[in-house]
Amino acid sequence: MATVLASSSPAEGWEEKVKAKRKQQQESIPQEWVISQIKTTPNVLDIPATCGLMTARELEITGTDDVSVVLENLSRGAWSSFEVTTAFCKRAVIAHQLTNCLTEIFVKEALERATELDDHLKRTGKVVGPLHGLPISLKDQYRIKGLEATMGYVSWIGQLAKDDAATVKLLIQNGAVLYVKTNVPQTLMWGETLNNVFGRTLNPHNTAFTSGGSTGGEGALIALHGSVLGVGTDVAGSIRIPSHYNGIYGFKPSSQRVPTYGMVNALEGQDVVPTVAGPLSASISGLKAFMHTILSSRPWTVDPNVIRKPWDSDAYALKEHGDGQGLCFGVIWDDGHLKPHPPINRALQMAKLALEKAGHTVIDWVPLHHRELNANARSIFLSDGAEDYRSAITPSGEPMITSMRPGADPADVPVFRQPRKPLSAFELWQLHKERRELRHAYFEHWNTTASVTGTGRPVDALIAPVMPYTSVPHGSTGPATYTLVFSTLDCPSLVFPVTKVDPVADSRAPPHEFRGADDEALYNLYNPGVMSGMPVGLQLVAQRNEEEALLAMGAIMDSALKKL
Amino acid sequence: MATVLASSSPAEGWEEKVKAKRKQQQESIPQEWVISQIKTTPNVLDIPATCGLMTARELEITGTDDVSVVLENLSRGAWSSFEVTTAFCKRAVIAHQLTNCLTEIFVKEALERATELDDHLKRTGKVVGPLHGLPISLKDQYRIKGLEATMGYVSWIGQLAKDDAATVKLLIQNGAVLYVKTNVPQTLMWGETLNNVFGRTLNPHNTAFTSGGSTGGEGALIALHGSVLGVGTDVAGSIRIPSHYNGIYGFKPSSQRVPTYGMVNALEGQDVVPTVAGPLSASISGLKAFMHTILSSRPWTVDPNVIRKPWDSDAYALKEHGDGQGLCFGVIWDDGHLKPHPPINRALQMAKLALEKAGHTVIDWVPLHHRELNANARSIFLSDGAEDYRSAITPSGEPMITSMRPGADPADVPVFRQPRKPLSAFELWQLHKERRELRHAYFEHWNTTASVTGTGRPVDALIAPVMPYTSVPHGSTGPATYTLVFSTLDCPSLVFPVTKVDPVADSRAPPHEFRGADDEALYNLYNPGVMSGMPVGLQLVAQRNEEEALLAMGAIMDSALKKL
Repeated sequence: MATVLASSSPAEGWEEKVKAKRKQQQESIPQEWVISQIKTTPNVLDIPATCGLMTARELEITGTDDVSVVLENLSRGAWSSFEVTTAFCKRAVIAHQLTNCLTEIFVKEALERATELDDHLKRTGKVVGPLHGLPISLKDQYRIKGLEATMGYVSWIGQLAKDDAATVKLLIQNGAVLYVKTNVPQTLMWGETLNNVFGRTLNPHNTAFTSGGSTGGEGALIALHGSVLGVGTDVAGSIRIPSHYNGIYGFKPSSQRVPTYGMVNALEGQDVVPTVAGPLSASISGLKAFMHTILSSRPWTVDPNVIRKPWDSDAYALKEHGDGQGLCFGVIWDDGHLKPHPPINRALQMAKLALEKAGHTVIDWVPLHHRELNANARSIFLSDGAEDYRSAITPSGEPMITSMRPGADPADVPVFRQPRKPLSAFELWQLHKERRELRHAYFEHWNTTASVTGTGRPVDALIAPVMPYTSVPHGSTGPATYTLVFSTLDCPSLVFPVTKVDPVADSRAPPHEFRGADDEALYNLYNPGVMSGMPVGLQLVAQRNEEEALLAMGAIMDSALKKL
Repeated sequence: MATVLASSSPAEGWEEKVKAKRKQQQESIPQEWVISQIKTTPNVLDIPATCGLMTARELEITGTDDVSVVLENLSRGAWSSFEVTTAFCKRAVIAHQLTNCLTEIFVKEALERATELDDHLKRTGKVVGPLHGLPISLKDQYRIKGLEATMGYVSWIGQLAKDDAATVKLLIQNGAVLYVKTNVPQTLMWGETLNNVFGRTLNPHNTAFTSGGSTGGEGALIALHGSVLGVGTDVAGSIRIPSHYNGIYGFKPSSQRVPTYGMVNALEGQDVVPTVAGPLSASISGLKAFMHTILSSRPWTVDPNVIRKPWDSDAYALKEHGDGQGLCFGVIWDDGHLKPHPPINRALQMAKLALEKAGHTVIDWVPLHHRELNANARSIFLSDGAEDYRSAITPSGEPMITSMRPGADPADVPVFRQPRKPLSAFELWQLHKERRELRHAYFEHWNTTASVTGTGRPVDALIAPVMPYTSVPHGSTGPATYTLVFSTLDCPSLVFPVTKVDPVADSRAPPHEFRGADDEALYNLYNPGVMSGMPVGLQLVAQRNEEEALLAMGAIMDSALKKL
């Protein structure tokens, strides 16, 4: 298990608190699920099946990617919730021993809940809700009554939640079983996962590589099939980056559709480029199951910030997108700032080919103001001069993590993390105003494509890189400009896996004319041999509030890719 | 015409700019529509009909309150747009001479547009859209290509709009005729209407009284039937207060339903308690015509901040409110802070009685955290230390208006307008966070009423005062705590007229135990003789995004009151 800590000038006692917390976590793991000998291969994906702890039946259950199949087996009693929960608890604990992906582990409560649900189904012949009996993992931010939600902050150890977060309430109401929470980076605002309480989460495809962040625990857990459906959050790429890095599916809705009330969070009160909640899953059907369930549960009754817009079946049937026939997609090959690595480019080519084979049109997208949209959001995030972060670490005296590179010099802070001068409220308003104009220009740009798509409609969805690279060795993740831009715009984005790095097909490209030092450094970061086998995902992006249409277009894309 | 200016220490030239602007305005009025002798009665409502400038036909047209009737006459060609536009232009100019309600006046362009629409209807037999041929007045904030939108700031004189505001685009697309823009207070953030460019707007029910603000020009104009449908904005009560003060209908939607893009505004970038746009009208059918048209026009395509939620006919049919049968309303008699004057209380009693006669239930509402919700929004509005206002007045050197009381000492600033120390972005975020918790508590409180309504549903809508008093003599309007609370909560609110002050029925109440100096001053402000005949409106408030249901419940309320 990874236990890397930032270098520190410790105040009295924070390390002791961490030690106690880790001991508590260790004790929450059933002794019989401890792997006696962990192999030291970089890729640990096979270990759950080979370590000897799981039965064939448990491997069958946890090996089922399609969430709709799991739910159907649960609802007709073919699989009991107890056995499904047992299987996922066990596999999650194994995943944790391989990648350090979990924070809170509560197997006993999960199995009690599963038993109740099984009893209910037996007694009434009816499911409690569409998620009946399904174990769902949660990013550490989601408060569950009676449990901690430390979010990796030492100061928050021991604070037991008094109530469930709004989304947790809806999941329980719809029959879900909760069993583990998952790891995050200190401050959340990072595309990797490392904090002083729980340490670092590793990528199961190569443990020398990052699982991404901030929903990095979910990414590693789901890739190892320790969960088939998890819930994360995203304000700049935090669902999308781990989905891409770990070869799974992820969905970032636009704001105000999925409840965020009752979570712990970073930069609380920064409500203009808002944190959104959404699912990560082993399959596209998992994304739909989550979104359909939440949007059909009157989510505005548990969070007044959620708009009164229930699941729209017409939108899912793509009524406003030619019933899904002859769609037109726009591809962002390159944002003109950071040139994507060869495997990302190949994945875009594959997506284009697959869609064309399926009868759709794919045109080049001209990125507009991406640099300005990213700079605007970053200025908003940094406008407090890091006061939010300081207020969370100061009480315990734990050190601020300034780099995620193992053994990094604390003074060596990546550019995108360097604190800035605090802004005044008035200055912050000017950034909000700038964002409004940038958004307006972008959507006007999008809507004018109606004249070139051949469908009479604007481009139905965009296909874009998630990051300009695949997962990288710990500490190498830079700013998330390909994802953040769609947070600033508040567009929903679906991440789907496409391929894996192939050192032959994805050989190093000749140097291009670099647009800056960051672009040059990015070019030099690529090493086809070292990155071999790392997953490549892409984003599919729709206009604001088009969650249902995007899920349907995601299914079209997924099925087209599977036929390639 | 009122021409009160604030006392000033003028920079070179701002008065000259005002003089030139007023001359330009004067010249935009057709000479033949100038009233030769203006009577000096306080109540000027009869003057349009008695001044001899309007024909019987013009009086019939402009005297038609019901916007659906006007639209029907226009669409079947019974009335031409040219004659309707002529009638409203003439009456608006008369209203302006009585109350100083207008800013930009563009009769020639309006009549050209009306002629085009008439030709179109004759040629094609079809209307351009549901608002075909209807003259619609606009608060000065709405940019119209080629015209000024000074918002009463001297610095902004001469700045011609390069494009139409998003809502203006939709109105034109749907067949509306634009003809006048209407007056506002300097800075907008005031419940009365006075600025250094255009001066003060008077209440046509009593010109010694204020028309309210910030949509005060619309309030006076519509009360005088110089417009049958106007568009305003509201961030704290700016549509609702003038509707109440002038005896007309007003509708403040929740945020992100009606476009606000492309307007000029105060406190731009303050996006958390947002400015919303909505209609004011002589009838409830005018509110519906506006909302139905805008929400049916894909407003999110002209303003990406508008949610993708088209007009919902099921919601208007009250499908989630028992099909409108046996509704349960909650009455806010008193917010526990500022005790409403006797006529407001009588209006609440009338509304209760009318609803009960119509078969509905009315229960007492227990206000929760009203003081905190108001304090929170006010702290947000004042968080820039008045930098926004200063940046608008500094270039011209015009003086800041610190009181709206005629002849007030500039040092005598009402408490709710006193500038505060500027906050940091981090401090502002803490206010946003506080707002989130207050909102959550309020809606939880609302939703728990399901156990006491007898309908199985939470209270369907709230009935509340707009202000704790009717319109008052110029300069006496205090903080808008009864309206602002529903801005902080982001609830839609519909204002409907109920009655007028009756010195006998509304005699002074004995002193109650005052809750503070403001409550005592408010008590002493009431004078049944002086306020006799002033209109009394109330708010009907629904949950967020329930615009369609609220319009339907408003119609139920209006019809019940008319049967009393």
